[in-house]
Amino acid sequence: MLIVMRNDATDKQIEAVSKVVKEMGFTPYAIPGGQRTAIGVLGNEKQVDSAPLERLSGVVNIIHVSQPYKLVGREMRQEDSVVEVGPVKIGAGRLVVIAGPCSVESREQMMSTAKFVVKQGASILRGGAFKPRTSPYSFQGLGKEGLDLLAEAREVSGMPFVTEVMDESSLEQTVEVADMLQIGARNMQNFALLKQVGQTDKPVLLKRGMSATVKDLLMAAEYIMSEGNEKIVLCERGIRTFSDASRSTLDICAIPSIKEKSHLPLLVDPSHATGEWNKVAPAACAAVAAGADAIMVEVHPHPEKAKSDGPQSLTFEHFEQFMQQVKAIAAAAGKELFELG
Amino acid sequence: MLIVMRNDATDKQIEAVSKVVKEMGFTPYAIPGGQRTAIGVLGNEKQVDSAPLERLSGVVNIIHVSQPYKLVGREMRQEDSVVEVGPVKIGAGRLVVIAGPCSVESREQMMSTAKFVVKQGASILRGGAFKPRTSPYSFQGLGKEGLDLLAEAREVSGMPFVTEVMDESSLEQTVEVADMLQIGARNMQNFALLKQVGQTDKPVLLKRGMSATVKDLLMAAEYIMSEGNEKIVLCERGIRTFSDASRSTLDICAIPSIKEKSHLPLLVDPSHATGEWNKVAPAACAAVAAGADAIMVEVHPHPEKAKSDGPQSLTFEHFEQFMQQVKAIAAAAGKELFELG
Amino acid sequence: MLIVMRNDATDKQIEAVSKVVKEMGFTPYAIPGGQRTAIGVLGNEKQVDSAPLERLSGVVNIIHVSQPYKLVGREMRQEDSVVEVGPVKIGAGRLVVIAGPCSVESREQMMSTAKFVVKQGASILRGGAFKPRTSPYSFQGLGKEGLDLLAEAREVSGMPFVTEVMDESSLEQTVEVADMLQIGARNMQNFALLKQVGQTDKPVLLKRGMSATVKDLLMAAEYIMSEGNEKIVLCERGIRTFSDASRSTLDICAIPSIKEKSHLPLLVDPSHATGEWNKVAPAACAAVAAGADAIMVEVHPHPEKAKSDGPQSLTFEHFEQFMQQVKAIAAAAGKELFELG
Amino acid sequence: MLIVMRNDATDKQIEAVSKVVKEMGFTPYAIPGGQRTAIGVLGNEKQVDSAPLERLSGVVNIIHVSQPYKLVGREMRQEDSVVEVGPVKIGAGRLVVIAGPCSVESREQMMSTAKFVVKQGASILRGGAFKPRTSPYSFQGLGKEGLDLLAEAREVSGMPFVTEVMDESSLEQTVEVADMLQIGARNMQNFALLKQVGQTDKPVLLKRGMSATVKDLLMAAEYIMSEGNEKIVLCERGIRTFSDASRSTLDICAIPSIKEKSHLPLLVDPSHATGEWNKVAPAACAAVAAGADAIMVEVHPHPEKAKSDGPQSLTFEHFEQFMQQVKAIAAAAGKELFELG
Repeated sequence: MLIVMRNDATDKQIEAVSKVVKEMGFTPYAIPGGQRTAIGVLGNEKQVDSAPLERLSGVVNIIHVSQPYKLVGREMRQEDSVVEVGPVKIGAGRLVVIAGPCSVESREQMMSTAKFVVKQGASILRGGAFKPRTSPYSFQGLGKEGLDLLAEAREVSGMPFVTEVMDESSLEQTVEVADMLQIGARNMQNFALLKQVGQTDKPVLLKRGMSATVKDLLMAAEYIMSEGNEKIVLCERGIRTFSDASRSTLDICAIPSIKEKSHLPLLVDPSHATGEWNKVAPAACAAVAAGADAIMVEVHPHPEKAKSDGPQSLTFEHFEQFMQQVKAIAAAAGKELFELG
Repeated sequence: MLIVMRNDATDKQIEAVSKVVKEMGFTPYAIPGGQRTAIGVLGNEKQVDSAPLERLSGVVNIIHVSQPYKLVGREMRQEDSVVEVGPVKIGAGRLVVIAGPCSVESREQMMSTAKFVVKQGASILRGGAFKPRTSPYSFQGLGKEGLDLLAEAREVSGMPFVTEVMDESSLEQTVEVADMLQIGARNMQNFALLKQVGQTDKPVLLKRGMSATVKDLLMAAEYIMSEGNEKIVLCERGIRTFSDASRSTLDICAIPSIKEKSHLPLLVDPSHATGEWNKVAPAACAAVAAGADAIMVEVHPHPEKAKSDGPQSLTFEHFEQFMQQVKAIAAAAGKELFELG
Repeated sequence: MLIVMRNDATDKQIEAVSKVVKEMGFTPYAIPGGQRTAIGVLGNEKQVDSAPLERLSGVVNIIHVSQPYKLVGREMRQEDSVVEVGPVKIGAGRLVVIAGPCSVESREQMMSTAKFVVKQGASILRGGAFKPRTSPYSFQGLGKEGLDLLAEAREVSGMPFVTEVMDESSLEQTVEVADMLQIGARNMQNFALLKQVGQTDKPVLLKRGMSATVKDLLMAAEYIMSEGNEKIVLCERGIRTFSDASRSTLDICAIPSIKEKSHLPLLVDPSHATGEWNKVAPAACAAVAAGADAIMVEVHPHPEKAKSDGPQSLTFEHFEQFMQQVKAIAAAAGKELFELG
Repeated sequence: MLIVMRNDATDKQIEAVSKVVKEMGFTPYAIPGGQRTAIGVLGNEKQVDSAPLERLSGVVNIIHVSQPYKLVGREMRQEDSVVEVGPVKIGAGRLVVIAGPCSVESREQMMSTAKFVVKQGASILRGGAFKPRTSPYSFQGLGKEGLDLLAEAREVSGMPFVTEVMDESSLEQTVEVADMLQIGARNMQNFALLKQVGQTDKPVLLKRGMSATVKDLLMAAEYIMSEGNEKIVLCERGIRTFSDASRSTLDICAIPSIKEKSHLPLLVDPSHATGEWNKVAPAACAAVAAGADAIMVEVHPHPEKAKSDGPQSLTFEHFEQFMQQVKAIAAAAGKELFELG
């Protein structure tokens, strides 16, 4: 159960409500937000009789929530959320394409890629400055220098950018400069990091872990939102299975499943899901047809020389074809492409 | 390696080739087909020197095959195969929709469903007469009576029909009357049954097993084709994983993966993959966008009364909407709908 | 619900009970058995009031069953079942070891293996005469000749033998001569075959499918038992997962899980679960420690020359060490080895 | 390839070697350790000709490493590593049992549990002060107060303790007081945290992620060891699969697989793998029989009142029986129990 308080509810009113909750034998849990304060009622196994609470001063509304995820669930909010990343709106009915290289490698690479992808219709730039790599001996990213190149590419192209944060140190360096913070699949249940990004006011792109259920993903988003940050875009990027069809298995039905359960916008990453460039376009088209709000794709001027994820990166030529296919499917699914300027 | 013989190769020529293969230390394996006879060369670990074979009389061509699946692979045949089911062509560039109830239950159910789905653009009817059920106490199908109703519905609607065979007995009853034989997911590696349908001249719809890799599926198809039946349509119907997004996990990337490896047409069954009627349309649209040649979907006049698979069956109203969505995506993907008459 | 009838219940009494069940709005399902007849009551969603049935003539007992598997479940029978294979008792408190080659290949191979493994403490011989192979081009077994060699090895060693049946034809050839019939993992849901072995009086070794849940396995056993054959031994042989630790993933917790849910004896096959000979002993020891009633292991005089499963076969020398390890663990788990003679 | 330098190698010698590596076209990567410095050679696709390096001053040895994990692999070190946690040695041939509650909840709970489990043969205490919970609304642990209670229980029982660290803040608080640091399954690829614990001198218990391969686990350990901390114990705690046999699927073959590939000691956590107290003993016995060096198990005086993981916790009475069973299997497997005092 969630007790929604008036915008102008006083601390005293909140305390009074909390006291009644305790007297009823439950635990009150304050959930402050930008717009309003809600008080979660924890510890109840069955539905609670809300009568004693309804009349308390400052209470606007009582919401019975049957799911363990509360703030991110459709029960709490029925209409779709829209997340703004600079001038770009994700979840507002137009298809957003995020494109760029896996890792930021050089000025030349970033500027040429940014200029090319924006011309083809991408509206957000991606690029990794801090790279979580399976091996400690693999390229770990350019760090601060990478962030500077992303900022420069933003200037040049007009696109806001998203980049991954991995820990407190990379978050501190990134939060001031980036337009959107990415939490990678491996950190989806790094609860400390989720809380930290939840305390920023930056939009967050939260990737589903390789063995995470949809419920796990929504609970991870709940961590972020319960800290006050409501600007969350969920990301399906493939799960780990036995299948030999592609590197990960794109869980296409997660799209209608998440849309049913949550009001948050949903992005699909066909590059990581497939692991092979020639499966990226079919997977992206499938995702758009199934209802994704956005697509994030890896593009590199010379995939064969990429320091990471070369095999799954599109060349410029492939990206151009990719955009034609994706746009056609998006139109058939009733979504135009979101384009800058 | 495959040694392709001339159409009019004599038994003597085939024996002569086999003898040379044995002298080279390998095992010859005759693969008779409608059009031609091929001789597989088994037992080689590395590539075989084909020079001694090329000059033998009756030999047209020598094909080096690197994959364990041979006849069904792209190495053997580069152009897409087309499978004809009555007047319907699967794999010929138009999207084919197969529709009908999970189980044949009654005349009224079959006639009303057949008439409705053909009007909306379906071109093949489905319906189970022999039902493989997890529980021995569940409805096991109407058997012969079900086949009669399917034949009657074919008369009424003009649609050919596909129905499942489970064993020698159901195959014997089915093969004369049905237009296409379905091998269910649970029987994908029932090699005896694969050989038996391989000896018929009916088109076969081969469903991927729930824990089968793409390679396993192609090897199962190879069993059928090595018996001489080349009319095979492969079917992706979801794999078993931990995901809570849907009952099975539709392996969407299996579509480009299979298309790359095999020349056979590919159908997707979104009803079994999702297990829930309201995920059937998104899953079907995704499959069409990713390149499927055909879609098979369960439709029932009263899903709430269905003897099997009610939760995943579309009502007539939902099927009408479904066809609008699927047709739009198909058009965007460059495929018109195949319609009868 | 199951209505258990007296041993000497007449057809008339059974009909009378069935009539009442129908009048109550449910479907009666006769489950004849060697010892007694039971009438399953199907179609009930909630617990049925059994009062009207209790007083009918011929009725001994009414059992409320909450699980979809009925005859194989602990609810129906609390004490452990014992299955006799010739002189060998599986499930009676001693550890049974089944050993032999994957495929029967030659007289020399079978006789030497049988003599060796019985000396080391194996009590049942295994060997495949009909082989379900992923590829149609792989060795498919010696067929009838293989059965003759197994029978000869039985003479020589005193061990009964188990061998796989794949279809009606192999079943017909096998049922007269074999002591135990194996249903392979790929055929676990070949319901026609399950019914056929259910109509024989031979003990059946039922292997869990690679993507089967414990519940699926028990439902498959229910198919066999509902045909009247109660001599079933269940087999855990590894499931398909993403893990790179071994070929299949031995689901060790399936042992306590199955023991809790079913009264049937349970065998573990560490050879197929691991796929590598040097993991067979640790996996077997684990299975025995976790409560398996029997172990089935592949042994070959020359694994490097085996026509199938060479990499997972133990040499004679390894089998000798294997038995020492397994016997020690069995003793610690309170189970002596079952030995012939 | 790894170039092992003498203990007393000078910076100048190391630089000289690095220079030659660069001249050969590869990237040198210094791997400092307590005992010696090694220089990894990265960027080679094939085996490198080591002749130019062998003669350089300060070089002791050149090791060709074929696996991506280097320091933790058997290629680098053939003999088993032993990790000391206070007076306890893990990996030295005796079975170590770690026991205690999931979460530290109260003084009474900790003292009674610590006293009981040490008497039964446990030698390390476990208890969570900082709890990574799926829901932000679940109990998050007592934090610093929990650490104090663990330290007090150590005084009382004589057992060193292990507790989980989740982030920089919990690590800072924990590192001074705890005897061993646990990295949870969800943080297995939190590379920032791995590096941080790699810079401490505390033993680390590294849990396998739910979708991590054995290779992924070894790469995560490589992150820790490449920072200089060699005191790593690996932990198998179940993977995520479709199986309904238990909450997670204990990957029992990971034990021989890890033992083959790495020299590090290996612990199994049957409590998290099974999720049900009555499967904990069979799973633990299986793990010991398969070669585990240590077992970690959850024990709680009143599992029904536990703030986390109640269903999988053993009562004192069950723990007593558990120890009897585990000791018997350990003895049969040639391992005595390690006991304090």
